[in-house]
Amino acid sequence: MKKTLLTLAILSTVAHADEGMWMPQQLPQVAKQLKAAGLKLDPASLTKLTEFPMNAIVSLGGCSASFVSPQGLVATNHHCVYDSVARNSTPERDLLANGFLARTLGEELPASPGSRIYVTKDVANVSDKIITPAVAKLAGKARVDAIEKNMKTMVAECEKDAGHRCTVASYYGGLEFYLIKQLEIRDVRLVHAPPSGVGKFGGDTDNWMWPRHTGDYGFYRAYVSKDGKAADYAKDNVPYAPKSYLKIAREGVKEGDFIMALGYPGSTNRHRLPSEVAFTFDWNYPAFVKSSAEALAIIASETKNNEDTKLKYAGRVASINNYYKNRKGLLTSYEGSDILARKTREHADMKAWVNASPARQKEYAADIEQVEKLIAQRDAEFKRDYYLTMSAPRLLTTARRLYRLANENVKPNAERKSGYQERDLPAIKAAVTALDRTYDEKVDKALVLNNLKKYAAQPKAERNANFDAAMGVADGMSEAQLKAVLDKMVGGSKLGSAAASGEWIGKTPADFKASSDSFIQAAVAMYDAGLKSEAEDEELAGKIQQAYANYMKAKIAYMTSKGQAVYPDANGTLRVTFGKIAGRDHGADGTGSWTAFTTVKGVVAKATGEGEFNAPAAQLAAIKAKDFGKYVDPKLKTVPVDYLATLDITGGNSGSAALNSKGELIGLAFDGTLDSIISDWDFNKANTRDIQVDVRYILWNMKHVDKADNLLKEMNVE
Amino acid sequence: MKKTLLTLAILSTVAHADEGMWMPQQLPQVAKQLKAAGLKLDPASLTKLTEFPMNAIVSLGGCSASFVSPQGLVATNHHCVYDSVARNSTPERDLLANGFLARTLGEELPASPGSRIYVTKDVANVSDKIITPAVAKLAGKARVDAIEKNMKTMVAECEKDAGHRCTVASYYGGLEFYLIKQLEIRDVRLVHAPPSGVGKFGGDTDNWMWPRHTGDYGFYRAYVSKDGKAADYAKDNVPYAPKSYLKIAREGVKEGDFIMALGYPGSTNRHRLPSEVAFTFDWNYPAFVKSSAEALAIIASETKNNEDTKLKYAGRVASINNYYKNRKGLLTSYEGSDILARKTREHADMKAWVNASPARQKEYAADIEQVEKLIAQRDAEFKRDYYLTMSAPRLLTTARRLYRLANENVKPNAERKSGYQERDLPAIKAAVTALDRTYDEKVDKALVLNNLKKYAAQPKAERNANFDAAMGVADGMSEAQLKAVLDKMVGGSKLGSAAASGEWIGKTPADFKASSDSFIQAAVAMYDAGLKSEAEDEELAGKIQQAYANYMKAKIAYMTSKGQAVYPDANGTLRVTFGKIAGRDHGADGTGSWTAFTTVKGVVAKATGEGEFNAPAAQLAAIKAKDFGKYVDPKLKTVPVDYLATLDITGGNSGSAALNSKGELIGLAFDGTLDSIISDWDFNKANTRDIQVDVRYILWNMKHVDKADNLLKEMNVE
Repeated sequence: MKKTLLTLAILSTVAHADEGMWMPQQLPQVAKQLKAAGLKLDPASLTKLTEFPMNAIVSLGGCSASFVSPQGLVATNHHCVYDSVARNSTPERDLLANGFLARTLGEELPASPGSRIYVTKDVANVSDKIITPAVAKLAGKARVDAIEKNMKTMVAECEKDAGHRCTVASYYGGLEFYLIKQLEIRDVRLVHAPPSGVGKFGGDTDNWMWPRHTGDYGFYRAYVSKDGKAADYAKDNVPYAPKSYLKIAREGVKEGDFIMALGYPGSTNRHRLPSEVAFTFDWNYPAFVKSSAEALAIIASETKNNEDTKLKYAGRVASINNYYKNRKGLLTSYEGSDILARKTREHADMKAWVNASPARQKEYAADIEQVEKLIAQRDAEFKRDYYLTMSAPRLLTTARRLYRLANENVKPNAERKSGYQERDLPAIKAAVTALDRTYDEKVDKALVLNNLKKYAAQPKAERNANFDAAMGVADGMSEAQLKAVLDKMVGGSKLGSAAASGEWIGKTPADFKASSDSFIQAAVAMYDAGLKSEAEDEELAGKIQQAYANYMKAKIAYMTSKGQAVYPDANGTLRVTFGKIAGRDHGADGTGSWTAFTTVKGVVAKATGEGEFNAPAAQLAAIKAKDFGKYVDPKLKTVPVDYLATLDITGGNSGSAALNSKGELIGLAFDGTLDSIISDWDFNKANTRDIQVDVRYILWNMKHVDKADNLLKEMNVE
Repeated sequence: MKKTLLTLAILSTVAHADEGMWMPQQLPQVAKQLKAAGLKLDPASLTKLTEFPMNAIVSLGGCSASFVSPQGLVATNHHCVYDSVARNSTPERDLLANGFLARTLGEELPASPGSRIYVTKDVANVSDKIITPAVAKLAGKARVDAIEKNMKTMVAECEKDAGHRCTVASYYGGLEFYLIKQLEIRDVRLVHAPPSGVGKFGGDTDNWMWPRHTGDYGFYRAYVSKDGKAADYAKDNVPYAPKSYLKIAREGVKEGDFIMALGYPGSTNRHRLPSEVAFTFDWNYPAFVKSSAEALAIIASETKNNEDTKLKYAGRVASINNYYKNRKGLLTSYEGSDILARKTREHADMKAWVNASPARQKEYAADIEQVEKLIAQRDAEFKRDYYLTMSAPRLLTTARRLYRLANENVKPNAERKSGYQERDLPAIKAAVTALDRTYDEKVDKALVLNNLKKYAAQPKAERNANFDAAMGVADGMSEAQLKAVLDKMVGGSKLGSAAASGEWIGKTPADFKASSDSFIQAAVAMYDAGLKSEAEDEELAGKIQQAYANYMKAKIAYMTSKGQAVYPDANGTLRVTFGKIAGRDHGADGTGSWTAFTTVKGVVAKATGEGEFNAPAAQLAAIKAKDFGKYVDPKLKTVPVDYLATLDITGGNSGSAALNSKGELIGLAFDGTLDSIISDWDFNKANTRDIQVDVRYILWNMKHVDKADNLLKEMNVE
């Protein structure tokens, strides 16, 4: 035992994390590294998005997933199917607590409204069609408008193929654009989820933590109409037959093995300018952390002794907590690090390289200087408006969105602002409907007042005259006066219910102007100045887009000159990351090192029979009885649960298929450790580890605890 | 960093835990080991209970503590002063949440009722006076009665010295007895406790766990009358001036340093027979774990949506959870271990040694055989009565205790049964008073019914006729019928309130016989048979005591013949354990190793701003600002929080002073790790680590966060 661990420790000192969220088409650039890491598939095969294995990888919009059977069975994380489980739960049939298993297709349940499975059909580089020679000449808002127009036209053309969703995604800060066409499967059904005591084992306490023992898996199934088209839910829809699906690995994995994860990482900031890094870590995140702590305290105090409002704000609290922990973790990693110094040096080196050649200097130097100035301007405005943004009551935001919709609706669909087109209507309706479940007047007022006090204390020149006038905020108001302002506004509005707000969808601008509702009036009053401010923002954004794209072009040229492949920051599109399964030679505070795997022994040790560590009795009994079947790891002598790897993932990768060197499913990525998340800004080779749930744990739990034999058979496992 | 950790890992492979809860007077037997471990004091100085440092070590009854100033300031764990903090908290002044600091003597608050500080004045071996030649000839109940009588006489004589509490403690399973005389300080005041976000940081989640970041410390002060005698709380009492007090170490500790802890461990079972081990781990603990899980589920379900009853059972839930986690941990460690095989072998070896000499065989063999038979009988009865014990409604137990008190009260005080003498009255009253805060009819019924069902399903011969008759339980009753039985009994009693139950204290047996209260009637009906059953139990206990003591004598002779010093199992008396500060080369599931120290960095990483990980904002700010003063560890470069050591402690050691080689205070022991607790039965050298809060963390938090400068000055630290 001791000898083994020392060996592992030495092994893991060399198993540094592997940077790179590669676009599939880039993989030939890193083919040598892929082969060296152990990939047995041809790297070129991974570039073909409509062939195995890439065409088995799907997006749920915010989560990643994959087909694992010829009948459209989709594997993803428990936290990605969580809402669907919650939606189908009742006090009498608590699926969150007890889990859910459909033993037949007929027993499958509709996923939560709005659930989608996106199957990528085509990806094309459309940079030249977005930034046409004509657009290239434009600047500021005109440039933004032209880009948006080109995108909308392209999307509309693409979406003529019914049942598809098309997106133009921006890469390298607006340097490149790709049109992505996806089959949008709208009939999504919940097939299986373990009890939360497995799927969410460890809860918030273990979130971002290692050692981890979460069985973060769940299954959907994609349904289409009988003729194979995407369709709304209908009883006689049939399971979608994917062109490919992943095979489950027959052999377990071990420390040192090759691993790759395929999924849809949401957003990273690795190519940011030094000034952006400084602003984020020295001002923005600290401010966010402070505001979050205040918001959490206010919600806790305002919802105390009221289970109903507590429930209404549970989602908000979970979300704040998640970002709060994330941002604190980022700040902790940042403090004492050399990130800013290094980024500053690298940026200076690049500028020196640019200036060393007259041609390069001519092409890039002005834009690099310009982008820094523009970003400083943007940051100053952000600071100025920080409290303003959080001083808007939820109902004011709702009213302004509804009035904007009425104004946009007057135009032909294609000319409407993005976010207010016909395709966006379901999202707007969903936001209004959510009011009944997520809004409480008392809590919202307390949250707003806390920020409004700080906003109102700013000098008049730094406040927003438009907001002040519409809300009735004046210089030097006391807290009591501001509270009275809020009370008057909220008291004069009926928008607090989903029904009342919903009635405004479809109304005309004249209807709004005729209304005596306080927030509708405020929305009307703020409209013109709001548009003006938006235009100014767009003017700035357009200038930034142009300069930023050219800065990125310079950076890529510079990196390429040094022989380095450059992958774009994550943007919600399909990426591949590869590396090794590996523990770490340094753990968290108080632990010397981390082993790569946890086991069911740790589940038993953590289980408390309640709350976040409520492992099901049946599972504990199976562990106790050593009812492990074929899922015992030969070295660990028990069933593995989660494992660490050196992969480069971020939010959005949740549910990503983890594959072995032969392209077989060996687990699902679901989290990273707290000191890995700084990698969203600056990849930290020594610390970064992501966490997978081992497919053996999934299968063992399905077979020996939840008796999901029907699904195991479907996946050709048993 | 990496090199250091590897070095530590190698170091810690040799730093095995150090077995032995030594009676101070035994230390000369292990003087060589003490010196080798690094003790700079003369081991002989530790044998003198009324001299430094031993006379600075006090008991709180269930917790350990120590004097740390000439004005009777007492340092112990936060969880040992928790009740006193809770008692003094109000919604307006939440001392649990915010902490408490008395800046002057006048601001100190009375500790919770019943709080005591016991200062040991004398310890004498009285074995010959308890087991006199006359007693040695007795057997069974006569022997138990005679021993109890001798003890009571001795205690009464000793307690004639007013203000003292005397106890006769049994060592080595009744082979030896010591009379312990302690000054019983009754005016105990709360001086300081950090917020629960420090003192209970990590809550139940981190309980028994490493890495740990709990600041488990708090301060009491001992008060006596102006003439220096123990006295009830009075405004003009004065701080007690202890003969000695501990000095705070000026120098920080590091991995590998000598450490010893002085305190009052409650109970261990290391000298148990193999058959006792088997019964405990194969039957008793598994049954307990099952019952606990059921009880937790029932309480959770019955108190759902009722904050009031939830609060009433919070203490019970915490207690069940604590033991539940403990017993599960014990079972996990036991499974797959060689404990039983080894104990069986060692026992066989001892018997072979006994039988190898006719003299030894004559002295011991019969008793060793006898003790095994008697214990088998006791175990069978325990199994038979397992559900019976848990089938008694709380009010029946209360009624029986009250009626017993009335019957004992008829006798002169000295002849009353232990537990019913005048000195026991406060405890009885406290138990009755607790009804209002800890009893709910609905919850109690649900808990009882769950066990009553199982009890009633036992064959009649294995049930208790006395209980059945008094409660109205009959053969073959359905659950509904049993529920009706319970409803009828509870409905017919007024004992559910503290006031109503309290009225029965002081009543005569005739008053009870005249009552129509259902549980009082049941208590009267069960009395005679109850006494008979008690007498049978005592008969068995007397036989066991005699045989067990001789078995222990044989074991000590056998161990001594092999040159091994034998320490008695823990029994709540003062003990010394020594060893080294040391991490571990193997961690918990998912961690490769443990470092010896945690730091404030880990506090920041775990802090969530709410619930169990609610580190105070002021503390987080001080950490962020690196406001560490002189409490930075030179190697860790930050403030240490908790550290691991190889000490041999158990429940009751909480608050034990941890001293360095010079006898200076370096921390307070407060917990062990989950896989250490098997050491209560079988000392596990490789795994056992106890956890101390580093005195530097205590002082740092007092100085830089809570501004407790007055106390630091009193302790001569600043």
